[in-house]
Amino acid sequence: MRPYKHPPASDLVLERVLYALSDSIRLEIVRHLAGVDNATCGELDGGRPKSTVSHHFKVLRESGLVLTEGVGTAHINTLRRDDIDRRFPGLLAAILAQPA
Amino acid sequence: MRPYKHPPASDLVLERVLYALSDSIRLEIVRHLAGVDNATCGELDGGRPKSTVSHHFKVLRESGLVLTEGVGTAHINTLRRDDIDRRFPGLLAAILAQPA
Repeated sequence: MRPYKHPPASDLVLERVLYALSDSIRLEIVRHLAGVDNATCGELDGGRPKSTVSHHFKVLRESGLVLTEGVGTAHINTLRRDDIDRRFPGLLAAILAQPA
Repeated sequence: MRPYKHPPASDLVLERVLYALSDSIRLEIVRHLAGVDNATCGELDGGRPKSTVSHHFKVLRESGLVLTEGVGTAHINTLRRDDIDRRFPGLLAAILAQPA
């Protein structure tokens, strides 16, 4: 399995993070990940077709919000909470505090 | 001058606000408006062509972030700070607190 590309913490861009969170499916994935250590794509896709969610995971990775690692045949996703909080203090907490 | 349409405060949607703020020109306009009572489009366009910025103002209006009123031949823009803060407490403050 080819490793996914992720931006380093120093390259995170506010507008890109806001864009990643401007879609209800991606926001739902991030809300879910904020409450667990990590989750497979299957646990996060809400039963949606793989073709739909794989694009959303890509946007989330490219924004720096989500880290995806291949473990065996599974894809394990983790919220990059520390990287985001260090770079954009208070941002994610304020967004996740809004009612779903 | 035909009045612009604006969503009522009760219809504001988090994802739409985040989308409106996910573009650097729109974020710059909102940052500017956060520091003044109101401003004309000309004061906010940063010298960009009207065709470019009119789309951005439309997105900002439709998200509920900005109110545009025609006054004589001018368009006066105001940040709907109270509506946004009441509906999404802490959100705008957290975003505007990030360095530009």
